[in-house]
Amino acid sequence: MNQAAHTDEKWWGWGDPGKKDNLSRHPEFIKYLSEQIDFTGKVTLPPPDVASIKIPESRLTKKDIASLLSIVSDEKVHTSDRSRIINTYGKSYRDLLRIRKKNFDTVPDAVVFPDSEDIVQKILTWAVENNIAIVPRGGGTSVVGGVETMCGDKNRAVIVLNLRFLNKILHINTTSLVADVEAGIYGPDLEDALGRKGLTLGHFPESFEYSTLGGWIAARSAGQQSTLYGKIEEMVESLRVVTPGGIIQTINVPASADGPELKRMLIGSEGIYGIITRVRIKVKPIPEEKYYTAYLVPSFEEGTEICRRIIQSGMKPAAIRLSDEDETEFAFSLLITKMPSVKNMVLKTGRRWLERKGYLPGKRAFLLLGFEGTKTDVAHERKKLRSFVSKYKVLHLGKSAGNRWYKQRFANPYRRDALLDHGIMVDTLETATEWDSIKPLYDAVIKSITRAYDDLGIKGIAMGHLSHMYSTGSSLYFILLASPHPDKELEEWQIIKRAASMAIVEYGGVISHHHGVGLDHKQWLEPTIGSESIQLLRALKFQIDPENILNPEKLLP
Amino acid sequence: MNQAAHTDEKWWGWGDPGKKDNLSRHPEFIKYLSEQIDFTGKVTLPPPDVASIKIPESRLTKKDIASLLSIVSDEKVHTSDRSRIINTYGKSYRDLLRIRKKNFDTVPDAVVFPDSEDIVQKILTWAVENNIAIVPRGGGTSVVGGVETMCGDKNRAVIVLNLRFLNKILHINTTSLVADVEAGIYGPDLEDALGRKGLTLGHFPESFEYSTLGGWIAARSAGQQSTLYGKIEEMVESLRVVTPGGIIQTINVPASADGPELKRMLIGSEGIYGIITRVRIKVKPIPEEKYYTAYLVPSFEEGTEICRRIIQSGMKPAAIRLSDEDETEFAFSLLITKMPSVKNMVLKTGRRWLERKGYLPGKRAFLLLGFEGTKTDVAHERKKLRSFVSKYKVLHLGKSAGNRWYKQRFANPYRRDALLDHGIMVDTLETATEWDSIKPLYDAVIKSITRAYDDLGIKGIAMGHLSHMYSTGSSLYFILLASPHPDKELEEWQIIKRAASMAIVEYGGVISHHHGVGLDHKQWLEPTIGSESIQLLRALKFQIDPENILNPEKLLP
Repeated sequence: MNQAAHTDEKWWGWGDPGKKDNLSRHPEFIKYLSEQIDFTGKVTLPPPDVASIKIPESRLTKKDIASLLSIVSDEKVHTSDRSRIINTYGKSYRDLLRIRKKNFDTVPDAVVFPDSEDIVQKILTWAVENNIAIVPRGGGTSVVGGVETMCGDKNRAVIVLNLRFLNKILHINTTSLVADVEAGIYGPDLEDALGRKGLTLGHFPESFEYSTLGGWIAARSAGQQSTLYGKIEEMVESLRVVTPGGIIQTINVPASADGPELKRMLIGSEGIYGIITRVRIKVKPIPEEKYYTAYLVPSFEEGTEICRRIIQSGMKPAAIRLSDEDETEFAFSLLITKMPSVKNMVLKTGRRWLERKGYLPGKRAFLLLGFEGTKTDVAHERKKLRSFVSKYKVLHLGKSAGNRWYKQRFANPYRRDALLDHGIMVDTLETATEWDSIKPLYDAVIKSITRAYDDLGIKGIAMGHLSHMYSTGSSLYFILLASPHPDKELEEWQIIKRAASMAIVEYGGVISHHHGVGLDHKQWLEPTIGSESIQLLRALKFQIDPENILNPEKLLP
Repeated sequence: MNQAAHTDEKWWGWGDPGKKDNLSRHPEFIKYLSEQIDFTGKVTLPPPDVASIKIPESRLTKKDIASLLSIVSDEKVHTSDRSRIINTYGKSYRDLLRIRKKNFDTVPDAVVFPDSEDIVQKILTWAVENNIAIVPRGGGTSVVGGVETMCGDKNRAVIVLNLRFLNKILHINTTSLVADVEAGIYGPDLEDALGRKGLTLGHFPESFEYSTLGGWIAARSAGQQSTLYGKIEEMVESLRVVTPGGIIQTINVPASADGPELKRMLIGSEGIYGIITRVRIKVKPIPEEKYYTAYLVPSFEEGTEICRRIIQSGMKPAAIRLSDEDETEFAFSLLITKMPSVKNMVLKTGRRWLERKGYLPGKRAFLLLGFEGTKTDVAHERKKLRSFVSKYKVLHLGKSAGNRWYKQRFANPYRRDALLDHGIMVDTLETATEWDSIKPLYDAVIKSITRAYDDLGIKGIAMGHLSHMYSTGSSLYFILLASPHPDKELEEWQIIKRAASMAIVEYGGVISHHHGVGLDHKQWLEPTIGSESIQLLRALKFQIDPENILNPEKLLP
């Protein structure tokens, strides 16, 4: 079997191994960390060397392998330790921590790289016949344990179905503005192909550069411009899903009244109902213009009210994001770089000016607004925005602040790797709720996390922002930074995560707005959607996959 | 038991008994009908007198009634012949024909009017215990047999659950722009209550005045302004559904990634998975301005291309509708009224002017465009429209033509009653497909229906329009008028309907875009969505309603 490396991604962290976030470039950020948490600057948890990791023997028998190789050629079946290791986890804090701790108790017994739907179907049949679990994997960027290799039964083998070679663009229809695409395609490859025809999908989650179309759909992802373009579920015209019992192809129409919308049961099914192999996506012309700008508002609470009114007035930003006061300071601390520069000087002068205007630390919240579309539509929206903000106490920071955000929009995961080196706990979690529940939910989650830090006797920060807004409510996103006790990171994370999740559920939030359920949220699904709904999801699971070979232990509690 | 009439609607036809479409007011329309079909002007199929209708004895035993009355007070249980008759059918051509023919082979054995969710739940429990089928009924306006009282088993009793008294507005939340409403509320009552707070749902199907919120959701309805406001499924924040096993309440959030979107399995479930009792709807401010206007374009084909470009360019009409050449003539023939008037003179002069411009009958297609929203947004859209149409060969008919359509937008069903008096077959059917399939699908359906007329040796018209447009495609709506052979109407209708449905399925259309499946489309569901999908719908049905008491024989083939 071909054991060659099939990827040059940073398997133990995020993205391009050539890119590194150098914390020491940001003296104010270092200062901020030193004040807020126990940051010493020492590297305490370096990335591991793959050769030093011990993993269990493969549970696949010679017979299993032989029958597998009768349906898929050997270069598509990887059984090397390296392949098994790098396909074990996703990109959650819990995952990255276990990688650095070399904790690889459950790993896939093989990794298979199908490059056609036909092979996917044959592998599913083989898996049912041989009682082998299958974990589908796109970019492997789940932050909720969605791609971790669980078997559903200790004595059972599990293989990862890595779909990155199921990545062909099959057809782009410029009349109906749809494209037929294989689901394993990565974000940049998809946008490149569409871009050559002047088109875009308009879906840019933070993971964009390293996640796949199928992954977005399986987890019900939201792009940073979802306020204009919608969540991924609204971008799917139809899809094909391979199940143990056959292929489900939903109908290729823009809308219908053909009974319950089964398409929506496959979207968000996180691999438990089948493998998404092919998607007809809705595409649109590349926007003629993108205009990103930013404001400061006096508080997160006032900003929330401004955001609600912007959205409910019918304004159509592509992106709208409001940081709380703490996230605003966090972001400000990253602005100044170590090297003296004109930019630094301008930034420092600007900051003093803000402070003279009363926008002091703790009394300012950063509001980002981005508009995309035709020149005439963007101009119209800008005009509406100007007229709107004239009625509120806000301070226009201008285009350069907006563009800075836009340029940095995929960079956060690199920073996380740098923080992890120093043993810092870095996690994000998110929910959505209606406008009148935003404040109580936000307060409850921040309080709950802070109390958990106190109970654990650790220093930590909890901050958040609104993004992905709707007429009836918004997504709420939280970022945690803390200094866990060495060797207690996992259990302390568990306690903090539990505290946050309980507050979300208690205050009527949904357990996820765009990360998904996976392993980390499944215990919260029943309190969120109710036991009757769980029973229905189970009934479908049993109908589709009675042997429970598909992504076992995920999503359903 | 209270046998009082509970409704003043025209039970054998449409709507307000005081409103009548008088065909003789339209001399050109009479001429049109006389030329196109065998229209004699004689009344051959008058509406029936309810007292002359014979129906079977109720199958409910004294014990059934006694146990029913132990859970619901007697004024809510109607067993009179009149109540049973008027709750038997919906409003399809097939239904109205059977009413006029006094064909009442299957009628409900009682009609129950619950006014609380609690009673609904008790009735479901009672129905399971006593093996009695339940047909939920809102406004009863289904045109696909969705509310016909089928029992699933000849020896079983069936009751209609008429939900019109489950119609309370529970709460209107002006911060989060949601309203909690009981599902049996009629369109006008809902809009009145919202209107008092300056709000609207924005859902105005042709049936609006006599249909209910719950009915819209059960059938996946689309309002005439759906191009701006979306289909009903997009207006539902959350809903409550009573099932035999308990109540399903979906979560009150604007968006989520909590696994498959089960809400979408309840929307469109047409009563087979449960009774929708309560809905949290998304509401919006009443538009400051409504601007409706109309154009003539040289052909349906050219108009289709214009519509596609309008939608794909990002213009945001609330309503956009393109009649084919035949529907355009049909509508023109209705313009002139019998009484001489200035309006008639203006219209006739205008028509001559059009013809001099080359827009002759058969060489013109009517394009309606409506914009709704804030004054500034409507002005912006109008500006975009003007700039857009300047590039195409179109003739602006102006606002009065747009307003005429708007004023008449709920009137068509009254005209149908008038035509039925004369034995004319009047039916509508609809589908949706992607832009590049519009022409082949349209041609195939028209040809298929026309061939069926020929085969049957009857005269008939088949015409259509595009409406409810999307970036990737559009709904296609067909109107049939024909002169069936007396006493062969039903079988001839069946043949014509079959011909149209086969063409839709063969050319990749969906079996319905907004009417639903009901009885009339269920045989076409499997060819449309595939047998794997049918199995999944069945698995859910069995999980929720193993005794098959809920709306038996509907939706699932």
